[in-house]
Amino acid sequence: MRFFFLTTPPENVTGPWNPGLEIARHLKALRFQSGEELLLLPEQGDAYLAVFHSTDYLELQGRSKRPTLPLLEVTLATAWPKGSRGDELIRRCTENGVTRILPLACARSVVGRGELSPAREHRWKKIIQEVCQQTRRPVLPKLELQPIPLKELREAVPDAHAIALVPGTWPLGMELDLHRPQRVLLVVGPEGGFTDEEEALLRDQKYSFAGLSPTILRIEAAGPLAIGLCQHHFLVRQGH
Amino acid sequence: MRFFFLTTPPENVTGPWNPGLEIARHLKALRFQSGEELLLLPEQGDAYLAVFHSTDYLELQGRSKRPTLPLLEVTLATAWPKGSRGDELIRRCTENGVTRILPLACARSVVGRGELSPAREHRWKKIIQEVCQQTRRPVLPKLELQPIPLKELREAVPDAHAIALVPGTWPLGMELDLHRPQRVLLVVGPEGGFTDEEEALLRDQKYSFAGLSPTILRIEAAGPLAIGLCQHHFLVRQGH
Repeated sequence: MRFFFLTTPPENVTGPWNPGLEIARHLKALRFQSGEELLLLPEQGDAYLAVFHSTDYLELQGRSKRPTLPLLEVTLATAWPKGSRGDELIRRCTENGVTRILPLACARSVVGRGELSPAREHRWKKIIQEVCQQTRRPVLPKLELQPIPLKELREAVPDAHAIALVPGTWPLGMELDLHRPQRVLLVVGPEGGFTDEEEALLRDQKYSFAGLSPTILRIEAAGPLAIGLCQHHFLVRQGH
Repeated sequence: MRFFFLTTPPENVTGPWNPGLEIARHLKALRFQSGEELLLLPEQGDAYLAVFHSTDYLELQGRSKRPTLPLLEVTLATAWPKGSRGDELIRRCTENGVTRILPLACARSVVGRGELSPAREHRWKKIIQEVCQQTRRPVLPKLELQPIPLKELREAVPDAHAIALVPGTWPLGMELDLHRPQRVLLVVGPEGGFTDEEEALLRDQKYSFAGLSPTILRIEAAGPLAIGLCQHHFLVRQGH
């Protein structure tokens, strides 16, 4: 069943409801037919079941269990790219199934040492919602705006299998085959790479090192590909 | 060693040479130092070895073997997305290691039934070159502009293991584990999916079916993720 994210939850859980212009636009584009069912999703918690009558008139049918998808819990801590490449990073991470995005502050970071512009927060949350609707992903990933220093990262995500992505090390797929983790923390450094001190810190803190490809990927390509590989590995493990 | 693609090959293979504004811009951004070596790559064939003196003066040292990377031969035949999403598709495919991109004409195709605008060819080739330089990929992928009808595809790429990407079928990783192909043809349908007739045709022509994720990916996300999974699988197989 199709679902749509709510910006403003309805006041009552049953009865007629006008979904507003944005959802109306989607319902029109998808050519909803009178009598068709859909789900309305608040940011968190149970869904609302609704029946379509017209783009400004849905009939709410009460609460319904929020759907879920078999996705692995993957946190991406990533150096931040410049300008609109940040939008691209968020779009691709969300498409490929990230659970949580943390901007990472490294010695060679160009962007993202201070808090990322709250003006962008609105745009990024909108990208996340749109991508989740397009890809039929009912649980929104979390996005942090305050960059975390590399040395504090391990403690902030303590229960995940931590993997630093460093070109030329053994393939991520082999790391996943070996450990079959239930929670993953992926770490992507800045374009100049981690410094020797940072690599030593990562080793001290028991990060694994893994690579993705014989090429050198940019920030907005590396994290999303790693997320996609983790989610696909999880799919294979489950025998889907 | 860093390399740069040539639009106009030098007249002589040794001696002083002015690389032109575009390569000069890259050399400046990368802070090349006097005496540093680099490679110049024509679209195909051997490289030219050069020594940097200044952004308008390189010393050519003669021909040199073109570098290669251990990438699997992957052809992507894909329905084409609208507008600038075509740029995004080409960028992501190139990043993730595609060998050849074929636009595919399907029953539900919205774009890409006729030849793709030759005006875009120049922009797309530029994107491909830039991405290959960024990711240090010395062999440029091929891009076809004339869409191929689905029923002619199998014959046009006869020696590859052909896989149609259809959501909800078994995971691509399992298909690759089973067959360990040396050449892959990936097929991505339009946003509405393949028709029943097209699925029957794919079955008749002995395509395998495989899926990527429990979500439904858009055209510019699906093909590139599948390419990335194939290249990573190849990396694991080689034990790199």
